[in-house]
Amino acid sequence: MKFRRSERLIDMTNYLLDHPRQLVPLTFFAERYQSAKSSISEDLTIVKETLEQRGIGTLKTVPGAAGGVKFFVKVSEKEVTLFINELCELIAHSDRLLPGGYLYLTDILGNPQIVQKAGRIIASRYADSQIDVVMTVATKGIPLAYAVASQLNVPVVIVRRDNKVTEGPTVSINYVSGSAKRIQTMVLSKRSLAEGSRVLIVDDFMKAGGTVMGMISLLEEFNASVAGIAVLVEAEKIEERLVDDYLSLVQLSDVDVKEKRINVREGNYFKGRK
Amino acid sequence: MKFRRSERLIDMTNYLLDHPRQLVPLTFFAERYQSAKSSISEDLTIVKETLEQRGIGTLKTVPGAAGGVKFFVKVSEKEVTLFINELCELIAHSDRLLPGGYLYLTDILGNPQIVQKAGRIIASRYADSQIDVVMTVATKGIPLAYAVASQLNVPVVIVRRDNKVTEGPTVSINYVSGSAKRIQTMVLSKRSLAEGSRVLIVDDFMKAGGTVMGMISLLEEFNASVAGIAVLVEAEKIEERLVDDYLSLVQLSDVDVKEKRINVREGNYFKGRK
Repeated sequence: MKFRRSERLIDMTNYLLDHPRQLVPLTFFAERYQSAKSSISEDLTIVKETLEQRGIGTLKTVPGAAGGVKFFVKVSEKEVTLFINELCELIAHSDRLLPGGYLYLTDILGNPQIVQKAGRIIASRYADSQIDVVMTVATKGIPLAYAVASQLNVPVVIVRRDNKVTEGPTVSINYVSGSAKRIQTMVLSKRSLAEGSRVLIVDDFMKAGGTVMGMISLLEEFNASVAGIAVLVEAEKIEERLVDDYLSLVQLSDVDVKEKRINVREGNYFKGRK
Repeated sequence: MKFRRSERLIDMTNYLLDHPRQLVPLTFFAERYQSAKSSISEDLTIVKETLEQRGIGTLKTVPGAAGGVKFFVKVSEKEVTLFINELCELIAHSDRLLPGGYLYLTDILGNPQIVQKAGRIIASRYADSQIDVVMTVATKGIPLAYAVASQLNVPVVIVRRDNKVTEGPTVSINYVSGSAKRIQTMVLSKRSLAEGSRVLIVDDFMKAGGTVMGMISLLEEFNASVAGIAVLVEAEKIEERLVDDYLSLVQLSDVDVKEKRINVREGNYFKGRK
């Protein structure tokens, strides 16, 4: 069965979006649609132009016999700004303030559309980097970690604070939480992370950065390295931030629990180093 | 700026896949592409046919002034069968057996591609049902729950076994775990689930069903009802299964820890009631 161009474009778009950072040989599409490679090349040019114009992503061509095409997510600056502004508005409601200066984010983190968009935006910054795995700590960072990882086409490893029987042998470390100055434990299944992995750390919220520091210590036990740190929300200016080099979408400032006031502004996404 | 059909089809496909079960008015697309409604209608016919032919999903048209089009995920039986077979092969490795008859699934659940595909397949069965929210219990069910929820365009609520300070007031229940017969606690933030919600329960693994029963008890406290139960893997025939009415992709049988043997077969996806 031969496919018309319109059908090829629709299926190709779905296929490429579904397989980010994976090399798809032209022959794969040529066989899939019983079409000449030259037609497939033309299709891909149209797909690439449209994805770029709409701020969705881009295609990169790998030339040669083993060549093909790869989709990279690349959310446009305009889309990112729109999203961050919406997120700031969502977060700025005073009824989100919980005792202890915590913020109720459960509804935002429970919305798959928001989480996926945030994941795409974070992944846009790391799409060109060599990332082998995304790491997060249970529980709240998990959805965002998956949203990022699915766009980077890498697995997720989840660090836990308890030791569950069902994951086999584990490595654990103790660390001092930055804000509360308490000694805590982190555990990771031995099998779940290969030596030498380049790891992108993703979390929903960062205060002083103690949890992130804990994850970095744990990585050392696996001889793995930090390829980046990204959070959805960072807390207001902390006197002693343990981590310098991170990406944030939103920053809290001027949180006053008594007055029930929160100011929320753009994080360092545009200015931050990765 | 006017858009050619090919560009419209590519962007439309991305937009619809990204907004499942949401009504998109024809006028939205007409304005987005500066095109006549009649052209948009023709585009949508092509998109619908292609999505159906490739086993991706379908479009439904809502007629009238407030009408438009909705995308529903609908993975074809052929694709489901392929996926379940692959999953069975992946799981059947004897080195997955952990002490206590548990199964190491961390690598499978850590693979976003697998989890998203499983999510689409489960969502395909519930796409036509009235589901207001997907519920799961921390930690391992979370990625699958998000994968399902994103296709159903509903939020996720996460039940916890500990009481975290950062979620505000909570409701908790005690329940007896089915296999270990221990009394355990489940906690859900009071704010996170509206009264009367129709809830799809999603989890990675089900043994006797104690955890699912716990979630059902918790739902009663919120005057919410069970709209379905879906798991990735169900354990081998349990003498006393606490839950009857569920969907599973894969079923374990004949697990022998001493002999390091696991048999894995298709779950009740095709035969099961929802």
